[in-house]
Amino acid sequence: MKIKLTVTLLFAFFALESSAQVPGRKYTSLTVQGKAIETKNRFHRVDTAKYPLIPKNVKNLLTNSAGLFVSFKTNSQSISAKWCTSDKKASANMTAIAYEGLDIYIKKEGKWQFAGVGRPGTKSCSESILIDNMDNSEKECIVYLPLYDETKSLEIGVDANANISEIPNPFQKNLIVYGSSIVQGASASRPGMAYPARLSRNTGLNFINIGVSGNAKMEKEVADMVSEMTADAYILDCVPNSSPLEIKERTKYLVNKIRNTHPKAPIIVIQTIIREHGYFNKSVGVRVKQQNDEIKKQFDELVKEGIKDLYFIPADDLLGNDHEATADGTHPNDLGFDRMIQKFQPEILTVLKKHKII
Amino acid sequence: MKIKLTVTLLFAFFALESSAQVPGRKYTSLTVQGKAIETKNRFHRVDTAKYPLIPKNVKNLLTNSAGLFVSFKTNSQSISAKWCTSDKKASANMTAIAYEGLDIYIKKEGKWQFAGVGRPGTKSCSESILIDNMDNSEKECIVYLPLYDETKSLEIGVDANANISEIPNPFQKNLIVYGSSIVQGASASRPGMAYPARLSRNTGLNFINIGVSGNAKMEKEVADMVSEMTADAYILDCVPNSSPLEIKERTKYLVNKIRNTHPKAPIIVIQTIIREHGYFNKSVGVRVKQQNDEIKKQFDELVKEGIKDLYFIPADDLLGNDHEATADGTHPNDLGFDRMIQKFQPEILTVLKKHKII
Repeated sequence: MKIKLTVTLLFAFFALESSAQVPGRKYTSLTVQGKAIETKNRFHRVDTAKYPLIPKNVKNLLTNSAGLFVSFKTNSQSISAKWCTSDKKASANMTAIAYEGLDIYIKKEGKWQFAGVGRPGTKSCSESILIDNMDNSEKECIVYLPLYDETKSLEIGVDANANISEIPNPFQKNLIVYGSSIVQGASASRPGMAYPARLSRNTGLNFINIGVSGNAKMEKEVADMVSEMTADAYILDCVPNSSPLEIKERTKYLVNKIRNTHPKAPIIVIQTIIREHGYFNKSVGVRVKQQNDEIKKQFDELVKEGIKDLYFIPADDLLGNDHEATADGTHPNDLGFDRMIQKFQPEILTVLKKHKII
Repeated sequence: MKIKLTVTLLFAFFALESSAQVPGRKYTSLTVQGKAIETKNRFHRVDTAKYPLIPKNVKNLLTNSAGLFVSFKTNSQSISAKWCTSDKKASANMTAIAYEGLDIYIKKEGKWQFAGVGRPGTKSCSESILIDNMDNSEKECIVYLPLYDETKSLEIGVDANANISEIPNPFQKNLIVYGSSIVQGASASRPGMAYPARLSRNTGLNFINIGVSGNAKMEKEVADMVSEMTADAYILDCVPNSSPLEIKERTKYLVNKIRNTHPKAPIIVIQTIIREHGYFNKSVGVRVKQQNDEIKKQFDELVKEGIKDLYFIPADDLLGNDHEATADGTHPNDLGFDRMIQKFQPEILTVLKKHKII
């Protein structure tokens, strides 16, 4: 009898725990930004029902909220979030904050400055204070959504007596970044550290994350989908997942399809970063060299065939040369992403300036 | 009946899965290195049974294998590991590889170069190939142990026909680093990226990790324990966890105790890095300033009181100035650790040269 009562009390305690909320807060749903085209499910990057022929894995990955964000202004002294994701848990090379959590940036002296994170709990729904104890001046904020999980719901919380209203997407133009897990954000330490998001904050331009982990293989149906996204420029960082044969057979279709659909938009092709274990693992080292040789060959042939406004960023030293810039040999850590950005951001901006996009 | 059979088969499958081993491999236990004093449990950093009066949390944290490693030479073309940890799972701001996994470095052209990781599975025991497809030349290797979990067992695996033998600790001298979660390794992306480990590889010196997450509070009993560790220099990075009052009341005891026990060893005091959310969260910002002001005051008083060979590293710009160098506002990501090292490694080496330690 005593045991039974204790068990009942324990259950009551846990039920209370799991539904416990931060008191005195006002929660709001906001428009999800960072997409190329509006979607039926607001937390998906692409409405994949429109593309029945793209591979199932790509469809699943496009339900992950990588690169999506909400932006708003508020005078609240604290900002919190309630959100739900799927039951998946972070892979071993990622933090749970990056995989299924949030981070917040606040505009300060004209720049987006990191302010805090939303820590996911052990269940699929979480509530977390992102930042508190602030002054009550009005601030512009961005909250980035989980990189690798499907977001099921998100509400932003402010003090009960504070104002909150959404603001237009703070980033200009649209630049599609189609790529692998590295684009999707493995192994950034939190959502806002994925490289397209960092490029957006650095430049004020909207780099749209079409990273599909392990599945950026330039299939015809995916090339058609990417081409349907209207943008000012297209960045193709899809070499890491494609075999040398796939690069040979598929690059031209992808580039030509984008060029035919968007005659004036620059297309920038990036070689794959070197895989750090490839310095010891001979077969990995050989494969990366074959991939990079093949994409260069395809690029050269496309130029020779008369494709205009096509640019190439080589992989040389994209990760520096101390071999410390990956989390697992394949995926850049935040140091690796920083080095990549230092290297290719100026090259991308040069192209955009040349084309009077900025 | 059919369901029962299916369930039985499923159980059989999982039993097989969990005991599955990479075939044709030879496993070896090796001496665990990176400790100040030998321990009874070879995977603990300190034999805490010798220090009954240190706080329970500190005792628990000293069972975490942060900074410990095995070193060996082998001509194996592949290297694997079997290891067990406790049932704990990674905190939201860390990867599982850092928290309870492994990474391997191999000496190449005189330098330690990252080669691969040991990915923990979902259970407490894992087996993982760290690197394979290598040539069969003899190589020197270091495998770092989990940063935040208690390692219960570790064996290194090589090809059945290959040789493996342990080598002496490849790092010279002993430098104690007593500090917080930042020393212990949050939020490095893998074990070898904790800053004491990086300093060791960069300098060839043995920086010993006495980071005790959230609990580096300079208690008298802990000060006594640290002083019992014979070393060539002592680095005190313990401001982040200590309140301004604790810093005021405890710093002198810690420094004097080390000085009295080791009259000639330089002692280097580091201010706490700025907490990034402290730029918006007023109470966090104020606390960090108070902590750093108080440690500077204590340092100045100690110098005035005649304590020799005491050095001070200020926090100015330790994380750079773009506010992107933490995983969660408090803990450096790999970019943050890189910036810290670039800043204080030269200062530490200058002190060590002055004292003819190197």
